[in-house]
Amino acid sequence: MKLKQLLAPTAALILLPALGFAQEAAEGAEAAAPGFDEIGPYIMTTLLFCMAGFLVFFMAAGFAMLEGGLVRSKNVTMQMTKNIGLYSIAAIMYWLIGFNLMYPGDGWIVPGYVGPFFATTVLDPVGVGAGDAALDYASIGSDFFFQLVFVAATASIVSGALAERIKLWPFLAFVVLLTGVMYPISGSWQWGGGWLAEMGFSDFAGSTVVHSVGGWAALAGAIVLGPRIGKYAKDGRVTPMPGSNLALATLGTFILWLGWFGFNGGSQLAMGTVGDVSDVSRIFANTNMAAAAGAVTALIMTQLMYGKADLTMVLNGALAGLVSITAEPLAPSLFGALWIGAVGGIIVVLTVPMLDKMKIDDVVGAIPVHLFAGIWGTIAVIFYGEANIVTQVIGIIGYGVFTFVASLVVWFLLKAIFGIRVSEEAEINGLDMAELGMEAYPEFSKG
Amino acid sequence: MKLKQLLAPTAALILLPALGFAQEAAEGAEAAAPGFDEIGPYIMTTLLFCMAGFLVFFMAAGFAMLEGGLVRSKNVTMQMTKNIGLYSIAAIMYWLIGFNLMYPGDGWIVPGYVGPFFATTVLDPVGVGAGDAALDYASIGSDFFFQLVFVAATASIVSGALAERIKLWPFLAFVVLLTGVMYPISGSWQWGGGWLAEMGFSDFAGSTVVHSVGGWAALAGAIVLGPRIGKYAKDGRVTPMPGSNLALATLGTFILWLGWFGFNGGSQLAMGTVGDVSDVSRIFANTNMAAAAGAVTALIMTQLMYGKADLTMVLNGALAGLVSITAEPLAPSLFGALWIGAVGGIIVVLTVPMLDKMKIDDVVGAIPVHLFAGIWGTIAVIFYGEANIVTQVIGIIGYGVFTFVASLVVWFLLKAIFGIRVSEEAEINGLDMAELGMEAYPEFSKG
Amino acid sequence: MKLKQLLAPTAALILLPALGFAQEAAEGAEAAAPGFDEIGPYIMTTLLFCMAGFLVFFMAAGFAMLEGGLVRSKNVTMQMTKNIGLYSIAAIMYWLIGFNLMYPGDGWIVPGYVGPFFATTVLDPVGVGAGDAALDYASIGSDFFFQLVFVAATASIVSGALAERIKLWPFLAFVVLLTGVMYPISGSWQWGGGWLAEMGFSDFAGSTVVHSVGGWAALAGAIVLGPRIGKYAKDGRVTPMPGSNLALATLGTFILWLGWFGFNGGSQLAMGTVGDVSDVSRIFANTNMAAAAGAVTALIMTQLMYGKADLTMVLNGALAGLVSITAEPLAPSLFGALWIGAVGGIIVVLTVPMLDKMKIDDVVGAIPVHLFAGIWGTIAVIFYGEANIVTQVIGIIGYGVFTFVASLVVWFLLKAIFGIRVSEEAEINGLDMAELGMEAYPEFSKG
Repeated sequence: MKLKQLLAPTAALILLPALGFAQEAAEGAEAAAPGFDEIGPYIMTTLLFCMAGFLVFFMAAGFAMLEGGLVRSKNVTMQMTKNIGLYSIAAIMYWLIGFNLMYPGDGWIVPGYVGPFFATTVLDPVGVGAGDAALDYASIGSDFFFQLVFVAATASIVSGALAERIKLWPFLAFVVLLTGVMYPISGSWQWGGGWLAEMGFSDFAGSTVVHSVGGWAALAGAIVLGPRIGKYAKDGRVTPMPGSNLALATLGTFILWLGWFGFNGGSQLAMGTVGDVSDVSRIFANTNMAAAAGAVTALIMTQLMYGKADLTMVLNGALAGLVSITAEPLAPSLFGALWIGAVGGIIVVLTVPMLDKMKIDDVVGAIPVHLFAGIWGTIAVIFYGEANIVTQVIGIIGYGVFTFVASLVVWFLLKAIFGIRVSEEAEINGLDMAELGMEAYPEFSKG
Repeated sequence: MKLKQLLAPTAALILLPALGFAQEAAEGAEAAAPGFDEIGPYIMTTLLFCMAGFLVFFMAAGFAMLEGGLVRSKNVTMQMTKNIGLYSIAAIMYWLIGFNLMYPGDGWIVPGYVGPFFATTVLDPVGVGAGDAALDYASIGSDFFFQLVFVAATASIVSGALAERIKLWPFLAFVVLLTGVMYPISGSWQWGGGWLAEMGFSDFAGSTVVHSVGGWAALAGAIVLGPRIGKYAKDGRVTPMPGSNLALATLGTFILWLGWFGFNGGSQLAMGTVGDVSDVSRIFANTNMAAAAGAVTALIMTQLMYGKADLTMVLNGALAGLVSITAEPLAPSLFGALWIGAVGGIIVVLTVPMLDKMKIDDVVGAIPVHLFAGIWGTIAVIFYGEANIVTQVIGIIGYGVFTFVASLVVWFLLKAIFGIRVSEEAEINGLDMAELGMEAYPEFSKG
Repeated sequence: MKLKQLLAPTAALILLPALGFAQEAAEGAEAAAPGFDEIGPYIMTTLLFCMAGFLVFFMAAGFAMLEGGLVRSKNVTMQMTKNIGLYSIAAIMYWLIGFNLMYPGDGWIVPGYVGPFFATTVLDPVGVGAGDAALDYASIGSDFFFQLVFVAATASIVSGALAERIKLWPFLAFVVLLTGVMYPISGSWQWGGGWLAEMGFSDFAGSTVVHSVGGWAALAGAIVLGPRIGKYAKDGRVTPMPGSNLALATLGTFILWLGWFGFNGGSQLAMGTVGDVSDVSRIFANTNMAAAAGAVTALIMTQLMYGKADLTMVLNGALAGLVSITAEPLAPSLFGALWIGAVGGIIVVLTVPMLDKMKIDDVVGAIPVHLFAGIWGTIAVIFYGEANIVTQVIGIIGYGVFTFVASLVVWFLLKAIFGIRVSEEAEINGLDMAELGMEAYPEFSKG
């Protein structure tokens, strides 16, 4: 197959011109062999989606490592199981329902997306000809893959917040609904050309559409689920439950940062013109700057507020910077990205303890990072684009109300039907032994 | 924003020339400076190999982490040493002998590959001119690099299965022969344009050529080497020897999944036409789907069979899905990828205990994942391509007999000459202290 | 080399058509819509910088994991904090001062880089038109991002050498000066078109400009800071202080190896011609070969010298191979890369104990890897390029004297003003609890 493939399509397009007939051939026959002026943008944009897609895919590993590092060692196997499980379920559900629900037939410009939406995603045929491809965009496969990896990010956010006490299967059931139905419906409002898009709501890569949505779903879950045993004493004291592996958490943060270049850069949705590829690079530079600013801000603030730099805050500061710039990573100058990211860092440092005061137990800080910084990022757009504050707030509220209410309903239903929380004994002994019978670090004795 | 961006700049810049002015433009001009219609595909395919190559390179880290997480902590330093050692040796041996053995002179279309095969791989000259390059393919350097990272994957498979009891240097000696001679010889049967290619055997990215080959070599080694002390009691009971770090194993799985986009996507061997780049993206989408299906299947099956989800099976299920789709990641629909991958997941769950019954001790499950799922994937091709079952089985048997017998011979020779197994005392105390004098986690006391 | 490469092949192919023949041929209308012959190289090179940039970014994670694995567990949180902190600070400082200091206005060919240098880096406007972009190079954003990730590497080198005893904030203050001022000044000598570039000094991707500079800064710091308590006994004996997590260190090495494809490959600074993309692939193949050779050499040497393979030496051998090939990853044949990398591996194995004899305490072996192998790599250029030994030595000395003296001064000032070393008690108890109040592995009891 390798040999054949090498010879067939490539040769058709290249060998002929190489013989010297190139320009001549170009005169009469070209329906058969369109040149790079025609196909180059399609190739580059398809490549962008593939490349950005694998980077965003890798964020699944980033979330797993971040969350695995921030939970206690007795719950690490469960966290790993949930994270690889949720990614896999998202990949299937988004194909089964989500993609066509989010980008419905007529409303969307790429041919081949048709309703009804159930498992009807049809990729371009093998070796699709230039005449049959969406030359003004990209291959369906690349677009599908790129959108698919986004939905998994949403579910990962929920996974972190609800760690250390939720049952495996009810959690995965929630993921089924979130990735197959809830996220695609609300996603279509903006990226499917829906009412918010028509209204002028602006959210480039998903501070709201992806991150806040994950944050709202997590918040609803955290409320229904309740805090971990022993986390909040009756007298108001908060018992720290430090993560078991900060090296792993740091690795996860770096992987997420890496993936974010794909997350934001790929959302340019085009790379085949001077303007588009330059924009992709602008987005890379701004995304990096916002993350750095979030990290440095959290570093300085924790030193000033607590007299000691706090690594977990620095990690979350970087992530908050990334979430903050996600709604508009293109338009700001580098200085713009700096202050948008810095505010994200401030938000995290201030709101993590606030949640604790409200006795909402978010194990990894997912709600401050993805929801609060996501809201901030969506508002910050008004400083750099045509969006106005009213529309942005409408969008934020729209996504918030829908996702929070739908999630509450689903969580309550799951709680009523199956129960969503492990037994007290299982929670104290750790989910790994109690629920899965398998420790993550069986040889390392616990302190 | 997304919708608008899609329409505006891309269309403006591209649609106009596409109307037909482009070719005229090319008329008077430069034989000396070939245009993108001529050089674009070469550039894109060379880029594909570089990009896919670094992704597949990273699979070396994936294997190291997966295996390092699944062995006991007393053998982790050894596992790391073996894995970075085998990759490095593969890189040298494949240059020294393998590449030219696998892709022999005349039989292959790229100029510059000439026999005799000893260390004769010559890259394109620095700044090669368009006239001297293989414009219908890619640069020699990129092709060499891409093929090289494949051979290392084969050796990594062996490393996992034989962990915790094999001596370092005999293992590395086997790697020398596997990557320098055995894999290249059998690889040339198919990818070098040999007898299996002529027969119509179909194995797109190497379910058989790479993964089964690794699996056969591992199986031969596991038989010659024997199981770990204490693994199989005389009464038939199997003593579980749980991996020391499941977070690391999960990370390794995610890294392998990431690398597989390069493994399968790069095997399209071309990215410079609409059809080729679309095919690459099809492969990305299918590869991802098969992995997800394998993971979910293993998740559900272990829950049903054992009452508890089993993370290590889920990890291996994802990998089995990946191996399964590797023989034909292009032609299937997304649903096709789903069920091919799902069957891979089933195979792993069913065959891991089967091997234990046969008292073949495969520490990480490499034989089920790479050999059994590899065979399945090679057979599954018949549902989606022109390949027929007889040819596929001939290929599977051909690779099996050659690799298994050759490996057996080599393992027996190594055993006879040097001994391949550490002393009983060294095995019990751990290879790290006994063989290397260096613990991987010296500060963490063992349970 | 960087400057020249920028001008030569790209310009030859692109500037001519850009002079106006292209548009004429295209019959008038398309000044607004230039074809791929004109814009293709810009797109490809911008993509190269983005892709290479994210790979080099990920080296920050590689350094963090390598160093986090090689320090004792009581100092891991500090090491993580320093590494994510230094990357973030580098990102900000390089924007604030460094970039424009390193590539000053007139001396450089890309429009838009203007002095004065304070925070004046202006990216291309959003959706920049072909007429306003540097069509013979790449977007400013991509170039800025690519250069930025390099400077962070320099600072990471220092972080490793000075681990386990330096205070957080003085270290970060040093990073501010190193990345904002010192590295950019000396970098401009070569890559900014300064006196060494004019002299013919050759350092393709920075064996000297990046790695030695990091090594010199680390050496100065190690001298001023002094060794860890208990490391060197009065009778000359050296107490080994083994790293706490060799799996993590191995992961870090693989990540660095991965990132190096971007580090060296991206330094081609062009990907839009047959010659350039082929050169990028040559660099990939050579970079990989040098790393492999360094690893294998260290593996064999430690076996021969000590009777046991030494994993940490193998890791550092691979890195030394990478540093060695960095000054000239393009011109050598694969065999050239092999022996250059192998010598790098030898250097590490021989100089790590040498430093210990001199009682210079370099926790992770950063000085042998980055400084000594960097010097070697810079000298090795003479075998494969036009560079002559005198100029190379002048460059090595120039960078050495400047960086070492400037670093010494800064370290002494920091020591005098703030103190750079933690208290004896804090060092013995570990920096994590003493300085940060947060353990990296709080549940794993220490052996």
